[in-house]
Amino acid sequence: MAPSPVVLGIDIGGTTTSFAVVDRDGHCLARETLDTRGEEPASCLVSRIHGRFREVCSPFSGTCILTGLCVGAPNANYYTGYVQNPPNLKWGATVDLAGLFRDRFALPVSVTNDANAAAMGEMEFGAARGMRHFLVITLGTGVGSGVVVNGELVYGADGFAGEIGHTVVDPAGRHCACGKRGCLEAYASAPGLCRTAMTLLAERLEESELRRLSGTDMTARAVFDAAQRGDAIAVDAFRETGRILGMKLADAVAVTRPEAIILFGGLAAAGELLFEPTRISLDEHLLTVYRGKVRILPSGLPEGSAAVVGAAALIWRDMETAGRSRDFSTP
Amino acid sequence: MAPSPVVLGIDIGGTTTSFAVVDRDGHCLARETLDTRGEEPASCLVSRIHGRFREVCSPFSGTCILTGLCVGAPNANYYTGYVQNPPNLKWGATVDLAGLFRDRFALPVSVTNDANAAAMGEMEFGAARGMRHFLVITLGTGVGSGVVVNGELVYGADGFAGEIGHTVVDPAGRHCACGKRGCLEAYASAPGLCRTAMTLLAERLEESELRRLSGTDMTARAVFDAAQRGDAIAVDAFRETGRILGMKLADAVAVTRPEAIILFGGLAAAGELLFEPTRISLDEHLLTVYRGKVRILPSGLPEGSAAVVGAAALIWRDMETAGRSRDFSTP
Repeated sequence: MAPSPVVLGIDIGGTTTSFAVVDRDGHCLARETLDTRGEEPASCLVSRIHGRFREVCSPFSGTCILTGLCVGAPNANYYTGYVQNPPNLKWGATVDLAGLFRDRFALPVSVTNDANAAAMGEMEFGAARGMRHFLVITLGTGVGSGVVVNGELVYGADGFAGEIGHTVVDPAGRHCACGKRGCLEAYASAPGLCRTAMTLLAERLEESELRRLSGTDMTARAVFDAAQRGDAIAVDAFRETGRILGMKLADAVAVTRPEAIILFGGLAAAGELLFEPTRISLDEHLLTVYRGKVRILPSGLPEGSAAVVGAAALIWRDMETAGRSRDFSTP
Repeated sequence: MAPSPVVLGIDIGGTTTSFAVVDRDGHCLARETLDTRGEEPASCLVSRIHGRFREVCSPFSGTCILTGLCVGAPNANYYTGYVQNPPNLKWGATVDLAGLFRDRFALPVSVTNDANAAAMGEMEFGAARGMRHFLVITLGTGVGSGVVVNGELVYGADGFAGEIGHTVVDPAGRHCACGKRGCLEAYASAPGLCRTAMTLLAERLEESELRRLSGTDMTARAVFDAAQRGDAIAVDAFRETGRILGMKLADAVAVTRPEAIILFGGLAAAGELLFEPTRISLDEHLLTVYRGKVRILPSGLPEGSAAVVGAAALIWRDMETAGRSRDFSTP
């Protein structure tokens, strides 16, 4: 029997790097995790991924052919293959990440950011199957976005389209890590939720279990757990987060008119606590012609492997306009 | 010599309708204007356009072949060819405008709104030639927008993408004609400029020639003329308009990352009075990675015929994926 083509989806985070061998249906045949070691040069990480990959995948040698790989990394540029000033990684100002992987694996390589990988994953294997216009919003430490128009990811003029996290909620509002003020990311991320909880604790007088937490201990998880127990401040922190998120999503809808918006990532795991106020606020701020027509959906990708499956989806797509392959064992 | 192919670009406004015979280079061979008579059914207007067209174009019969037409109209939907609840036109809830023109002219017909026609005109013949990612913002009685991504107009899931005029400046702000509050259109349109001037007159004490005008007499033209004469309130009304416009354009940049934003329409004719504060505010509100990279440009289309040339550009494009033609004299 002819060996099946597979790809490698890689997700580089500040602390942990994951990769998975993924087939054309989005199934993970093998999955691995290693420490990123952000203080080492990028080339060391690439070598370690290559080494681990060969170990993990030797059982498949003969039955599968690796045909390409895609790397999701912070501040990665799809057009250039470069990563610029990645947060939490001491890689210097610019690293040719696509080049490093291409040299090591001798295969087609695409590089993208996590939100674009998520969008491609949802389109190929997740909640956006069959859609031609949608947004994916990644809600975690930051707020990222992947924009799909006419069935294609929007990279824009220089590869950095889709930064809805840095649209303005309030020009005189909270300080954002990007240096601006009042960005959506300062409200609708995991730390943003905590800042909203802290603001509510300061404004209001009622008892809340969150009053016993220090600023350092105030995590999105803690706010979620308190909200699950009915803590009014915690519930309202989610409500306010959803109100602001829905308002800014309405602005984004007015640009590309998506069929749906998929909420993705850690904070989206809060479910209806976040989804319900987001839906209400979205509809309230939408132009009449859009109202009731834009769905807010959870991710349809397997939890925990969404990022690597998304990266795999992207390289599958890219190769379908190119088409080369190499044997598992050759590189 | 073989007759040259030409198209008809039509612009239906609340009061006046224009059409022009346009060649593949965007030159107007003939141009006509007639009263829209919004109280009559749409079919009457279509008949009158057809009649005037035959009169105007009889000199070209034999030298030109009409190959298609495109109609720009308020609330027109490119996907369906329908116009829904057009403001200032008593056409009823839904009119099959494409069908009416197709029946009368027996030619390929496209229907679009004015902002999309403007965007296509700029891409084919104007300031966006050679660009693959840009926005056109029409600043007139309302604020419209045409969004181009990967060299294609974005219509979105239902044909109504590109409503940047109804993104939210302030959820508790000015009442907008759309029924929402605080929309960009309530600030950055011609009436929005006048409302800003009125607000400044109420807030401040200094003398201004605008104090002699009633609310009814306060027009964008009057504010412009006063600003030209150095009236501080009038100048600041433009400055505040540009500040708000730039802030909301920054949000739109974060979605599709255009190369440029083209300001189009009556209010854009104010030139640097509006462009300068818009540029400053745009850059101030952009994410660092975009800063200094998104140009704000004036329209590159001939004043007065931009709308009809834009409509013509759209049907030229559409036909290049279809390709039929008919003689001038046949319909």
